[in-house]
Amino acid sequence: MADSPGTPPVKRVAIFGGTHGNELSGVYLVKHWLKENEEITRSGVEVTPFIANPRAAEKCVRYIDVDLNRVFDPQHLGKENTPDLPYEVRRAKEIHSRFGPKGSDEAYDVIFDLHNTTSHMGSTLILEDSSDAFVIQMSNYIKACMAPLQCMVLLLDHPGMKYSTTRSVSKHPVGVEVGPQAHGVLRADILDQMRMIVKHGLDFIQYFNEGKGFAPCSIDAYKVLQKVEYPRDENGDLTACIHKKLQDRDWQELNPGDPMFITIDGQEITYEGESTIHPTFINEAAYYEKNHAFTKTKKVTIVARNLRCSLVQ
Amino acid sequence: MADSPGTPPVKRVAIFGGTHGNELSGVYLVKHWLKENEEITRSGVEVTPFIANPRAAEKCVRYIDVDLNRVFDPQHLGKENTPDLPYEVRRAKEIHSRFGPKGSDEAYDVIFDLHNTTSHMGSTLILEDSSDAFVIQMSNYIKACMAPLQCMVLLLDHPGMKYSTTRSVSKHPVGVEVGPQAHGVLRADILDQMRMIVKHGLDFIQYFNEGKGFAPCSIDAYKVLQKVEYPRDENGDLTACIHKKLQDRDWQELNPGDPMFITIDGQEITYEGESTIHPTFINEAAYYEKNHAFTKTKKVTIVARNLRCSLVQ
Ligand SMILES: [Zn+2]
Ligand SMILES: [Zn+2]
Repeated sequence: MADSPGTPPVKRVAIFGGTHGNELSGVYLVKHWLKENEEITRSGVEVTPFIANPRAAEKCVRYIDVDLNRVFDPQHLGKENTPDLPYEVRRAKEIHSRFGPKGSDEAYDVIFDLHNTTSHMGSTLILEDSSDAFVIQMSNYIKACMAPLQCMVLLLDHPGMKYSTTRSVSKHPVGVEVGPQAHGVLRADILDQMRMIVKHGLDFIQYFNEGKGFAPCSIDAYKVLQKVEYPRDENGDLTACIHKKLQDRDWQELNPGDPMFITIDGQEITYEGESTIHPTFINEAAYYEKNHAFTKTKKVTIVARNLRCSLVQ
Repeated sequence: MADSPGTPPVKRVAIFGGTHGNELSGVYLVKHWLKENEEITRSGVEVTPFIANPRAAEKCVRYIDVDLNRVFDPQHLGKENTPDLPYEVRRAKEIHSRFGPKGSDEAYDVIFDLHNTTSHMGSTLILEDSSDAFVIQMSNYIKACMAPLQCMVLLLDHPGMKYSTTRSVSKHPVGVEVGPQAHGVLRADILDQMRMIVKHGLDFIQYFNEGKGFAPCSIDAYKVLQKVEYPRDENGDLTACIHKKLQDRDWQELNPGDPMFITIDGQEITYEGESTIHPTFINEAAYYEKNHAFTKTKKVTIVARNLRCSLVQ
């Protein structure tokens, strides 16, 4: 079988912390690496740690005006810099010109975008494209290195659910989501997991640049189907919360008839879909305002062709 | 032995939710009880559910301008209503005149003030006065009803650590602190614990009013000594976080030489005090801005005389 054509080497990598300013693992790591970058230095590649939303990080809030991780689309990026432009849209334009432009040759090769969640998702890589062999091979490598700790892969390529992420300005966007951790809190265990993922991801890039070949692989992933909303009353107030049997059970099977919510009067609301799903982002604090109780996913297998850097003999 | 003099019956009780607007168990319960109050109705006593900081609850933030749970002191309550007065100070003055005035005969008898914490404190009652036989007897009753689930008692009577709480306008203030729960999140398990505490507290009041006598009792409590600060650099950035061996171990012994923090470079910072302490409020999100990593307490026994209502024959 003929080899696939070589893939260009990775020249520029960015590590974003504080895309959401109250997700402290990434803020803390990136602030540290801005002072001491030895840990993230790899020969032959420029690695840039970067606080994506410094004003939100300063105030320890998710965002100042609008969610930075939702505005990297042509509509927002094309806006003029008027005084009433939301802070995060101005910031997105800056990030886009510094690390992009999106879809261009000048764009950064890889952005690791560091997030935390209140959901019990453990270590998760978020991929935006099921045909990106480079990122799938990297995920396969990271999963193997993290074992026996689980590292899940969430595939966010649903057109209606895909949001215009900060990392999407790069050629190979990689979301790193680690939880459970309350926003505004720094936990040593969660920090370690995130730090290991970044280490293994950078190691992968170095091996790739050095000419190591990666055989075709397949990995389990969870493909986003749609969000599930909270039950609310006519005033918009919650009338139920996540059921104890669903809470903290991200990635596990939810079958028709299984409880999803419990009302304040003790009534169970069950899942009435037709097939088994795998919920994730269960009870994420930041999603209450988006009326998003959890994300339905289905388990899929994604595959990557063999991978080898084009510039190495 | 002669009986102690009888204690007047409890006529008016308030249940405060949303003193901190992003602590959702209390907000959710109180909003429900404002619509359907059967669960909190007890004969012979007026029970008032109340959202203490409605603007903060609306925005799902701890506070708008200043922490409502720190301004019930003469200095703040004595301020004139000028346009630049912080929202929470205005609100404190309203709460003080509606449920107080503090220290007067007209003050509400009991306020249950419902809070959540990101710390692994479980169910906790916070008392402000180690000589308040009524609240100690109530705590003893609630602890017995909650068993085998633990219900801890935190004694916040240290002059330097005592803050001027919302509930302090009543004759018998009772803080109810339940965790771990991320702020902005509603967990069914935490909700149930808080709801049970309120139920047992109201039952106690009813039994007391009906003439049930309570024999002298003693309970274990954890008396606040002082706060421990985070290690920070010259810019005020954290240089260490809570050590894995301390995280989630609220109420357990911390002995001289035990690790408290771990720096980003992996150095352990140990506890170098002279005697065993019992940390609590370990890694509470809202305390980062107060530079408060955890609270040192010591284990004490507090006692209450017998208790009987004065108006019952
Ligand atoms: Zn995030
Ligand atoms: Zn609180």
